[in-house]
Amino acid sequence: MIDFITCCDYAGTFAFAISGIRLASAKQFDWFGAYVVGFVTAVGGGTVRDILLNSTPFWMLQPSYLIVSGLALLFVIIFRKYVIRLNNTFFIFDAIGLGLFVIVGIVKTLDFGFPVWVAIVMGTITGSFGGMMRDILINEEPLIFRKDIYALACVFGGIAYSICLKLSLPPAVSQSISAVSVFAVRILAVKYHISVPVLKGEE
Amino acid sequence: MIDFITCCDYAGTFAFAISGIRLASAKQFDWFGAYVVGFVTAVGGGTVRDILLNSTPFWMLQPSYLIVSGLALLFVIIFRKYVIRLNNTFFIFDAIGLGLFVIVGIVKTLDFGFPVWVAIVMGTITGSFGGMMRDILINEEPLIFRKDIYALACVFGGIAYSICLKLSLPPAVSQSISAVSVFAVRILAVKYHISVPVLKGEE
Amino acid sequence: MIDFITCCDYAGTFAFAISGIRLASAKQFDWFGAYVVGFVTAVGGGTVRDILLNSTPFWMLQPSYLIVSGLALLFVIIFRKYVIRLNNTFFIFDAIGLGLFVIVGIVKTLDFGFPVWVAIVMGTITGSFGGMMRDILINEEPLIFRKDIYALACVFGGIAYSICLKLSLPPAVSQSISAVSVFAVRILAVKYHISVPVLKGEE
Repeated sequence: MIDFITCCDYAGTFAFAISGIRLASAKQFDWFGAYVVGFVTAVGGGTVRDILLNSTPFWMLQPSYLIVSGLALLFVIIFRKYVIRLNNTFFIFDAIGLGLFVIVGIVKTLDFGFPVWVAIVMGTITGSFGGMMRDILINEEPLIFRKDIYALACVFGGIAYSICLKLSLPPAVSQSISAVSVFAVRILAVKYHISVPVLKGEE
Repeated sequence: MIDFITCCDYAGTFAFAISGIRLASAKQFDWFGAYVVGFVTAVGGGTVRDILLNSTPFWMLQPSYLIVSGLALLFVIIFRKYVIRLNNTFFIFDAIGLGLFVIVGIVKTLDFGFPVWVAIVMGTITGSFGGMMRDILINEEPLIFRKDIYALACVFGGIAYSICLKLSLPPAVSQSISAVSVFAVRILAVKYHISVPVLKGEE
Repeated sequence: MIDFITCCDYAGTFAFAISGIRLASAKQFDWFGAYVVGFVTAVGGGTVRDILLNSTPFWMLQPSYLIVSGLALLFVIIFRKYVIRLNNTFFIFDAIGLGLFVIVGIVKTLDFGFPVWVAIVMGTITGSFGGMMRDILINEEPLIFRKDIYALACVFGGIAYSICLKLSLPPAVSQSISAVSVFAVRILAVKYHISVPVLKGEE
C-alpha cells in the first residue's frame, strides 16, 4: 500500500535528514546530536505548521519519520566517504521532498478551513522552516535566506496552486502542477544560479 | 473604521518589521529572507503567546500583518539611503508598538481566564520575543537582554496594569496607564542610558 | 504537603535555572536576560512537550517555577564567588532533575493516549530541550549534542520504562527504575568520560 506520494514523502524526509546530519557532522556533533538535527530538519517545518494549525504534529502519529531519519544516520555513517559524490542525487531528492512538503502544507491548511493566503504561508513554512531550524541548531545564519531560491520556490508553488484553484482544476491536477512548479523553480534556480537580490546594508 | 488602536498596532508592526529587515540586510540576507526576518520580528512575540494560550495565531486571521511587513520591506528598499536618518522616528514607533503589544498580550491572557501573573508574563513575551527571535535568526546574541531596558519595560507595564486592576479602574484607563508606562520606561531608559546591571561572570 | 517528587522537581528546576543563569552571565547578559535564560532552561523542555501534546504549559498553572528561577538568580548574584565550588552539587541536582523531568514527560504523554515510542521521544524532549534552547539563546552550538551523554541518557530512561511496562511492573516501580537509570547513566557517563562517537566530517 506504499503509493507514489508516500515514496516521495520518504525520499524527501531522507534527503532533508541527510542534509541536517551532514551539516551537524561538519560541526563535530556526536551521532545522537546529528540524528536530532537530521530529524528536526526533516520534520521541523511540518511541526511548526501543525502547531500553528493547532493539530497534533504528523510525526507523532506513526514512527516512520523517526525510522527514516535513523536510516539516514546509518547511511551517512556507513557511506561517509561516498556521500559527497551523491550530492546531485540528494539535491534531486531534496527538491522532490520540497515540492511534496509544500503541497501537504497547503492541502492540510485548506482542510482546516483557512483561506488560500494562509495556505501559501503554511506551505512555505512546511518546506523551509526545517532547514531554518537546522541552521539555528548548528549555529549558522539560515542558508535558505541567503543562497539560491529556496523558500521563494515554496511561495511560487503556493501561487501556482491558488491559480489552479481559481481555474477550478481537479485537486490532483492542481497539486501536481504546484509540486512540479516548486521542483522546477528550485532546479532552475540552482542550475542557472538565479537568486533573490541581496538587500544592501546602509552606508 | 480604522481606529486609534489599529493605527498604533500597524505603526508598531511596521517599526518592528523595519528593525528586523535592517538587521537582516546588514547580514546580507536576500529580499525574501529579510522579509521573513521582518515578519517574524513583528509577529513572533504574539505568535508564541497565542501558541502558549492554545489560540489561533492572530496574524492567520487577517492578511494585514503580512501586508504591513511587505510595505516595510518596500520602504527599506526604496528609502535605503534615508532610513538611517529616521532612526528617532522608528524608535518612537517601536516604543508605541511595544506599549500596545504588551497590553494586547495582557488583555488576551486575562480573557482566557488566566491569573494576572500569567498575563504579565504573556505581555512581556508579546513585546519582547519577536526581537529575540529576530536575533536568533540573524545569529546574534539577543540584544534585548543586553542593552537598555526593553523586556523589563514590558514587566513594568504588566505590574502597572495589575495595580490598576486592584484599584478597580475601568479597563480603558488601566490599559492606557499600562501602555503609557511601558512607553515612558522605554523612552527614559534609552534617553538616560539606564540599564539593568550586568551579571558578572565567575572569576 | 510538599512530597518527595515535588522536592526533586524544585531541585531540578533550580539546578537547570542555575546552569542557564551562569552561562548567560559569562556572556554579559543583564540580570533580567539571565533570569529569562535560566527560566527557559528550566521550563523549555516541558513547554515544548506540552505544546506538542496540545496541553497548557505546566508552568502557567502555578507560579512556583517562576519563583524558583528567581531564587536561582538571587543565589547566583549573592554567592557568585562560591558558585564555582558547588559545581559537583549542581551536577547532582541537575542529574536528579533530568531523571525526574524524563519521567514526568513519559507519564504525561502516556496519559494523553500516545504509544510508548512517542512517550520516549517526549521524555527526551522534556529532559534535553531546555538545555538546547539555553544554548540557542546564548548563541552557542548546543552542548548536549556534543559533550558526554545527556540527551541519550533520557532515551535510555525511556527504554527502561518501556521494558518495565512490558513486565507489568507497578507504575511507581517503573518510574523509579526509569528515573534512577537516567540518573545513573548520566553520572557514569561524566565520571568515566563516556561519550557518543563523533560523526567525522567528509574529507
